[in-house]
Amino acid sequence: MSFSQKEIEIVSQKKGFSIITDVIIEQLSDIKNYKIGILYLFLKHTSASISINENADPTVREDLLNYFEKYVPENEPYYKHTFEGSDDMPAHIKSTIIGNNLTIPISNGKIELGTWQGIYLCEHRNNPHRRKIVATINGEKF
Amino acid sequence: MSFSQKEIEIVSQKKGFSIITDVIIEQLSDIKNYKIGILYLFLKHTSASISINENADPTVREDLLNYFEKYVPENEPYYKHTFEGSDDMPAHIKSTIIGNNLTIPISNGKIELGTWQGIYLCEHRNNPHRRKIVATINGEKF
Amino acid sequence: MSFSQKEIEIVSQKKGFSIITDVIIEQLSDIKNYKIGILYLFLKHTSASISINENADPTVREDLLNYFEKYVPENEPYYKHTFEGSDDMPAHIKSTIIGNNLTIPISNGKIELGTWQGIYLCEHRNNPHRRKIVATINGEKF
Repeated sequence: MSFSQKEIEIVSQKKGFSIITDVIIEQLSDIKNYKIGILYLFLKHTSASISINENADPTVREDLLNYFEKYVPENEPYYKHTFEGSDDMPAHIKSTIIGNNLTIPISNGKIELGTWQGIYLCEHRNNPHRRKIVATINGEKF
Repeated sequence: MSFSQKEIEIVSQKKGFSIITDVIIEQLSDIKNYKIGILYLFLKHTSASISINENADPTVREDLLNYFEKYVPENEPYYKHTFEGSDDMPAHIKSTIIGNNLTIPISNGKIELGTWQGIYLCEHRNNPHRRKIVATINGEKF
Repeated sequence: MSFSQKEIEIVSQKKGFSIITDVIIEQLSDIKNYKIGILYLFLKHTSASISINENADPTVREDLLNYFEKYVPENEPYYKHTFEGSDDMPAHIKSTIIGNNLTIPISNGKIELGTWQGIYLCEHRNNPHRRKIVATINGEKF
């Protein structure tokens, strides 16, 4: 049984959903040594999220962005936490709705995503940010 | 310390929330050998979800379905990802809101759900689908 | 490699979001013995949630409460599960949106939260409740 841990830094793009599967896998070359295990991803921020969704058609990411812009709007009259900008409080809300931690199975040296699944970094602030993800691997090696 | 992993296939019912606790437990007879551990469930799809909610009154599942139909509607004017049908893009959005991965404690040979908790498979497409869940167990055996 | 597990009981405040990071850490003094690991938190209820969000400005918690009150409203005309009070069905919905399980990395004897992150107990019922969280630690000790 082995544990390993690494902090991965990704500079997000402006507000939106982007696929980071390849960046994550590239940084975690050790995964290939695990027969069975779990990859834990934990985002150390409260105005961004990580999620798993469609890895093919980019309009899925656009529609997700537009949905969350509409249903977690800026400038709601009851918002009190406004001093960091109108994009800040919606970012915190989206962070709690979408979440900041994932557990992905590892099987035969690879993460076991479905055919159409990709790992998303969801940037909820207007501008790009340096985002830190703690990646922990636990499992049984070959 | 032991790891085991199994893919479970469940044919979902039409759009809605259904309880799959018994199906999961039946397929994972090994759980009874673990004194302490974690059951990881990972759904390999982007238009369905897994969640934990009330295991008793079926109207909870009906109300959940109707809530999500209203608040993640079909045919929003800004949707671009529409070629797979009007139920497809809402399915992706619900998938990111509800999530596709769970970690459930194992204690003394059983999963440690609360009295009123059940595991849900949430089908977001109109029609039934074959849905695959990777179940991983990690823990200390008796 | 070691596993340990403990049930923590917290009496929630009335409906709202509160920070429980210190309560959790106090109850889990064993964390300091782990070099690498994961803390799993699992809430055994279907009308409350756990989440991670901003640990500083209390208006973030107020705005979260008000957002969810508006977007997961009481008394929707289609609700059928109403016999436990008008706050009950929205509580179940919020529970599925926000979730009841978290995985937090442990690194060098401490949980590895970002600077601005705190662990939240989200009470969705009007009145305080006794809420049980199963905390499991798995990792490599020093």
